[in-house]
Amino acid sequence: MKVILAKQAGFCFGVKRATQMAFEAADKGGKTYTLGPIIHSPQVVQKLEEMGVKALKDISGMDDGTIIIRSHGVASGELEEAVRKELEIVDATCPFVKKAQEHVESLSQAGYDVVVVGDADHPEVQGIVSYASGKVYVVGSGDEAAKLPKMAKIGVVAQTTQSFENLKNVVDACLTKGGEIRVFHTICDATAVRQEEAKELASQVDCMIVIGGYNSANTKRLAEVCTELQPRTYHIEMAQQLNPRWFEGVGKVGVTAGASTPKWLIDEVLEQIEKINKDKNH
Amino acid sequence: MKVILAKQAGFCFGVKRATQMAFEAADKGGKTYTLGPIIHSPQVVQKLEEMGVKALKDISGMDDGTIIIRSHGVASGELEEAVRKELEIVDATCPFVKKAQEHVESLSQAGYDVVVVGDADHPEVQGIVSYASGKVYVVGSGDEAAKLPKMAKIGVVAQTTQSFENLKNVVDACLTKGGEIRVFHTICDATAVRQEEAKELASQVDCMIVIGGYNSANTKRLAEVCTELQPRTYHIEMAQQLNPRWFEGVGKVGVTAGASTPKWLIDEVLEQIEKINKDKNH
Repeated sequence: MKVILAKQAGFCFGVKRATQMAFEAADKGGKTYTLGPIIHSPQVVQKLEEMGVKALKDISGMDDGTIIIRSHGVASGELEEAVRKELEIVDATCPFVKKAQEHVESLSQAGYDVVVVGDADHPEVQGIVSYASGKVYVVGSGDEAAKLPKMAKIGVVAQTTQSFENLKNVVDACLTKGGEIRVFHTICDATAVRQEEAKELASQVDCMIVIGGYNSANTKRLAEVCTELQPRTYHIEMAQQLNPRWFEGVGKVGVTAGASTPKWLIDEVLEQIEKINKDKNH
Repeated sequence: MKVILAKQAGFCFGVKRATQMAFEAADKGGKTYTLGPIIHSPQVVQKLEEMGVKALKDISGMDDGTIIIRSHGVASGELEEAVRKELEIVDATCPFVKKAQEHVESLSQAGYDVVVVGDADHPEVQGIVSYASGKVYVVGSGDEAAKLPKMAKIGVVAQTTQSFENLKNVVDACLTKGGEIRVFHTICDATAVRQEEAKELASQVDCMIVIGGYNSANTKRLAEVCTELQPRTYHIEMAQQLNPRWFEGVGKVGVTAGASTPKWLIDEVLEQIEKINKDKNH
């Protein structure tokens, strides 16, 4: 059985940076917390907890110590509260997300009504939206954007993991809504590149393993696009979940992982597949 | 034979305003010229000539007198020359065209590369383009826009008579070219409204008459969209061109006119059709 690992499997730039910053802060010791899970990987969050770094829902109970801002960013109000409390802040917000937040802030200040293309329930979007001082709308699709009211000046930004197609559809709808439409292309192409590679791989193999947190939107989407091309696609968080029966009659296995999946989890999965393969041949 | 005149036939806001301004200037007397034809109606241009107002190609030979800027606007350099020569300027540029010129000027000054959606040979577009101080591109379609280079900041404006569909296609292409895309929706919906009404009329009648200058882009386009629905469509400039044979076996005639067609020409056509109708019934 041949195992092919996608080149783009695992950590993207922003997640890698955030995780490094969190582990460095953890190494220093002292009262250290993350505001929300640092990334959408329960295993990374657990490892930090073992080092004494807990994920807090909010900082209302904190009076001192270090607070690490997660890769998806937080609402501007929460950041301000941390500053007011004079906490030590480690801002691990992905620089691409930070850009989107800054664009919303400046668009809003310049009198634009802001449209954020994204998932209203996602913490990244909730953070981005909080930077608007005027009107702000979150739309998930062109159809939703078509229901927006008329506006004089519209500023558009996107959740960094949105598809280009979705941004395009929203912009098209906004063109009928306002006299001026100012679009910041805040999509990070890591998601699209990873998906494209996964699709190519899924169509070449007999079985596809997608590794990543069940709470990770990009991993779930990765599993969806693979399933469309290869029904024998399995989304797992850890090596222990691999089932030898999945590999019966399989000649080639493809492996990919979401942007928040650490290398060690991918390595464990690869080792476990090798083990299953050996057992198969005995 | 029933004759139906389209509600939106004839002068649009900008042409009406420009024509009024030109005739008022002509009434005052003195050395008065228009820079280019005031509007794309040879009959209006001829009427002004009969009042002593000639259309000039440029103002290089003018030393004094009044110069009327046509509805499509002129290049910024020509306007500056007129100011330098201390000519009396009657600026009959359509306010919507003026807006497009101003947007190009300010976008350019703010460091945007400018994309103008339109017909590069049209005087309106040539005027608009002249307001750019940096890079500027004219594209006629989304396919042409797809060939543009990558740019950091893209400003998009449209020739006022472009279709919304075309603007949308260009914006979609530009979204793949730059980090920021700022679109000013400079399309005047008079053209679209006129075309929609003409289409509806053309599909209800047995013969369609479209009145307007053969040099008028919007009239030519009007005749095209009518011909698609009613092959018996005739584009004329004047009543004298009407041919009684066109109306043989015709129960209903539709009449529309381009944005630069004066009311008097439309009235003459309607009278002539009535006359042909009377002759038919004798």
